[in-house]
Amino acid sequence: MRLSLNQATTRPYGLAETARAASAAGVRDIGLWLESVAEVGTAEAGRILRDTGMAPSSMSRVGFVADKEGVELEAAIDASKRALDVCAELEVPYLAFIPGGLGAPVRQSTDAGEARVRDALERLAPHAAGTGVALAVEPLHPLQVCDRSVISRVAQALRVIEGLPAERFGVLVDAWATHWDPELREAILLAGAQGRLRGYQIDDFVLPLPTPDYANGRVMPGEGWIDLRSISSWVAEAGYSGPVEVEVFNKDIWALPLEEIIDRMRSSAAASIPGIEIEERAR
Amino acid sequence: MRLSLNQATTRPYGLAETARAASAAGVRDIGLWLESVAEVGTAEAGRILRDTGMAPSSMSRVGFVADKEGVELEAAIDASKRALDVCAELEVPYLAFIPGGLGAPVRQSTDAGEARVRDALERLAPHAAGTGVALAVEPLHPLQVCDRSVISRVAQALRVIEGLPAERFGVLVDAWATHWDPELREAILLAGAQGRLRGYQIDDFVLPLPTPDYANGRVMPGEGWIDLRSISSWVAEAGYSGPVEVEVFNKDIWALPLEEIIDRMRSSAAASIPGIEIEERAR
Repeated sequence: MRLSLNQATTRPYGLAETARAASAAGVRDIGLWLESVAEVGTAEAGRILRDTGMAPSSMSRVGFVADKEGVELEAAIDASKRALDVCAELEVPYLAFIPGGLGAPVRQSTDAGEARVRDALERLAPHAAGTGVALAVEPLHPLQVCDRSVISRVAQALRVIEGLPAERFGVLVDAWATHWDPELREAILLAGAQGRLRGYQIDDFVLPLPTPDYANGRVMPGEGWIDLRSISSWVAEAGYSGPVEVEVFNKDIWALPLEEIIDRMRSSAAASIPGIEIEERAR
Repeated sequence: MRLSLNQATTRPYGLAETARAASAAGVRDIGLWLESVAEVGTAEAGRILRDTGMAPSSMSRVGFVADKEGVELEAAIDASKRALDVCAELEVPYLAFIPGGLGAPVRQSTDAGEARVRDALERLAPHAAGTGVALAVEPLHPLQVCDRSVISRVAQALRVIEGLPAERFGVLVDAWATHWDPELREAILLAGAQGRLRGYQIDDFVLPLPTPDYANGRVMPGEGWIDLRSISSWVAEAGYSGPVEVEVFNKDIWALPLEEIIDRMRSSAAASIPGIEIEERAR
C-alpha cells in the first residue's frame, strides 16, 4: 500500500499548488475533489496531473440520493453521470458515492432508503460501464445516518450492491466512519473476496467533536483513538494493495501552510501504518 | 407500554421532589440512578417510593469494565454487587450495565473488550442470582465505542451474553444509541424471542451535538430525527409491554422547573408513541 493525499486534507489549497507540493514531497497519488477540478476545468486538471506526475487515486463525490425524489433526484443522477465523465477523462479509477440520509426530519425506514440508493446505482450502471469508471459506495459514521448516509456499515454497503457487477460497484472504507463496527474485519475480508474493496482512507477519531462542524474534527492518523494498525492489516489481508488516502477534515489543519500539512500527513501515515510506501522527500 | 420517568431527564432534582412531582403528574414509574438513591440512603429511598406510590422501572448504572484490570476492575465488580443489593432492597427489576470502552487511547480489539465484559458478567452471575435482580447490557452509540462501550449494537450485546441465563442477563434498548442500526428490528425481535428484552428508553437525536458534552445534547422524543414510532412498534412486536423510560440528557432541559420537564416529557411521549399509557395528571 502506498500513501495518497486526499484533497480534503488540504482543502483551502487549489489543485495546482497541491499537486506541486505533494509531488515535491514524494507523494505521487492524489484523491481529487470535483469542486477542485471544476475550479480549473477538467483539461487543465489533466495537464496539472501530468506535469506534476501525480496519479489520481479517487474522486470525491456524488450521491446523496436516499432522501431525494423528483427533480432533485434527477439532478443528483445527472451530476453523477457528469462526474463519471470527468473521472474517465482524468483516468480516475473510482468515484465515491455517498448514499444520502434517512431524511431529517423526514424519517423514512432504512429499507426504503437503501432501496432508493440501489435504484440510483442501477440507473447509473450503464453510464459507469460506458466510462469504465467504478462507483464506490462509502458508508459514513452512524452519526450521519439521518442527514448524510443510510449506509453506515461495510457489510450493509455490500448488501445494497449485491448482484451489480463487481468491476463497477465497490465499497470505499474510511477509518473514521467504520472503526467502531464490531464486524468490520469480516466485512472488509468479504469485500476483498468479492473484488469490491475499491479504496481505503485513513484519519483518526477523538472526542469531543467540534460544534457545529462535527464532521470537521477528525485528526491525523495516529493522533486519535482508532486502531489503524489492525484495520490496515485487515485491508491488506483482504488483498488490497492500492493507495491509502489520508483524508482529514479538520479546520485547524486547514489553517496550516500547505507543505506543513503534507509533512504531517507523511509522518502520521508512516507512524500509524507499518510498511506503507512513502517516497523520500524529493527536494 | 406505559410511561416512566428516568431520573437522567430531571438530573438536578433530588429523588423526593422528583418522585412527588412525577406522582402528582400521573407518572407512576421511575428509572432510578444510584447517585440519587445514595444521596438519601436506600432505606429512605424505599420510603419515598412507597409514600409516593412510585414503582422503580430500572437502576442506572454500573459496568465500565472493558478497559479495566487489576484493582480498578475489582472495584467495578464490587460496585456492581453493591448496586445489585440496592436494587434488591428497592425491588428494582434490572440494573443497567454499561460495558466500558475499547480504551482511549489504549486501543484493545473489540474481541478483547467483549471478552472482558463477558468475564465480568460471568463473575456477577452468582450475586445476581442471589439478589433476584437482572443485569441489562446497554449498547451505546458508536460515537462512544472508544471511551464508554465496546458494545454498540443490540445483536452484539445478545452475542456477548449468549448462554448466560435469560432471567438474569438481558439487554436495554435506548433509541438514541441504537436508532441508526440497519438491523435493529431483527435484533429487537431476537431479544424478545430470547426473553432478554429488559427495558426500552426513548429520547431523540439531532445534530449538531454540543461540545464538549456531546452526550448531553439529546432532545425530547419527537423533537429530533429518530423514527420512534417504528422502533416502538418493533419493541411491542417483540412482546415487550413494560415501562418506557424517557431518558433525555440535555443541559437546557435540566435548567427548567421540575414540573415543566415532566409536562414536556408526558406530551412528547404521548405524541411520539401511539398508544402509550399515560395517566391523566392527578392534581
